[in-house]
Amino acid sequence: MSGIESLNVLAEQFARLPGIGRKTAQRLAYAVLAYSDEDIAAFTRAMTDAKEKIHRCPTCQNLTDRSLCPVCADAGRDRSVICVVEDARAVLAFEKVRSYRGVYHVLHGLISPMSGITPDALTLHELLARLEDDTVKEVIVATGATTEGEATAMYIARLLTPLGIKVTRLAHGIPFGGELEYADEITLSRALEGRRHFEE
Amino acid sequence: MSGIESLNVLAEQFARLPGIGRKTAQRLAYAVLAYSDEDIAAFTRAMTDAKEKIHRCPTCQNLTDRSLCPVCADAGRDRSVICVVEDARAVLAFEKVRSYRGVYHVLHGLISPMSGITPDALTLHELLARLEDDTVKEVIVATGATTEGEATAMYIARLLTPLGIKVTRLAHGIPFGGELEYADEITLSRALEGRRHFEE
Repeated sequence: MSGIESLNVLAEQFARLPGIGRKTAQRLAYAVLAYSDEDIAAFTRAMTDAKEKIHRCPTCQNLTDRSLCPVCADAGRDRSVICVVEDARAVLAFEKVRSYRGVYHVLHGLISPMSGITPDALTLHELLARLEDDTVKEVIVATGATTEGEATAMYIARLLTPLGIKVTRLAHGIPFGGELEYADEITLSRALEGRRHFEE
Repeated sequence: MSGIESLNVLAEQFARLPGIGRKTAQRLAYAVLAYSDEDIAAFTRAMTDAKEKIHRCPTCQNLTDRSLCPVCADAGRDRSVICVVEDARAVLAFEKVRSYRGVYHVLHGLISPMSGITPDALTLHELLARLEDDTVKEVIVATGATTEGEATAMYIARLLTPLGIKVTRLAHGIPFGGELEYADEITLSRALEGRRHFEE
């Protein structure tokens, strides 16, 4: 702590950000102090601008600054397949691959009883609303292979299967370039379970 | 890049901060988007407040929100010894030790020809001004043991020695708790050079 109240307040603001510890927060606060008034104005404007302009796409709940996100606005996307992801960054990751032509649904979180995040906190009502007409044939649950990701995937599968919708999930296995001796047991056992014929 | 202009602008602002890479900057920008309007206002206010209230102490150039910094304002400090440091964080580090009773001078940088930082960019004029009466007997150059730190220390020593002021520097050696086998060669050779008699 610097003994300068307004510097400590700024450092605390940085320390609230994910993955920023006390030491780093203090370093960032000092760095901002060295900014010109114009630089400070640019930074604060960037924050308020982003918050003001960016909202959730009314269809897929992804973040966007337009009335519909680019994927939902694209008439060429296949509306019969919805890929359900945790957050906006997962959409970016899938869009980089370019092979996926369906649409998305962004949950904005994962079920986590430990952190008090219940299914109600996710955008599941909005997902169910999208399934009301018969357009959607398949929902790919693409949450991460973590405890919360798996729990959320399971919850969604149980929610949607009774509706007669095909619910699938990403394949688990050895990552590209992964050497067998470095794979953990769960990855190996899943890679075994999911084994396929050659030239399938 | 998210494809959302205002989000990219915000991520770029975070990426300008020291030690924050592109990936981290994007993560921080997304985190700020999840903030409430009140949280955003608190963050931007902390930035402008800190910038507005904090200035350099007219004597030692350390950062402060008062007319004089607490060290310079303290009549109990020994004004005959000035400890010259790179930045405000170094002052904090010394003040934690509590054994130092002199005053400071904050350079706000180190000479670095590679980064285009010349001696003019530091607060050397202000340091020289403090040496004009005969109060100061010793200047301890406490810059870090890096290339820039050493170059700056050397420069200051050459600048002040002709003025008849005792210029000293911190001892180099094995850090407390440091095991010999992990000390690099330069540290070891300096520890040897600086060796002392027992019970000196």
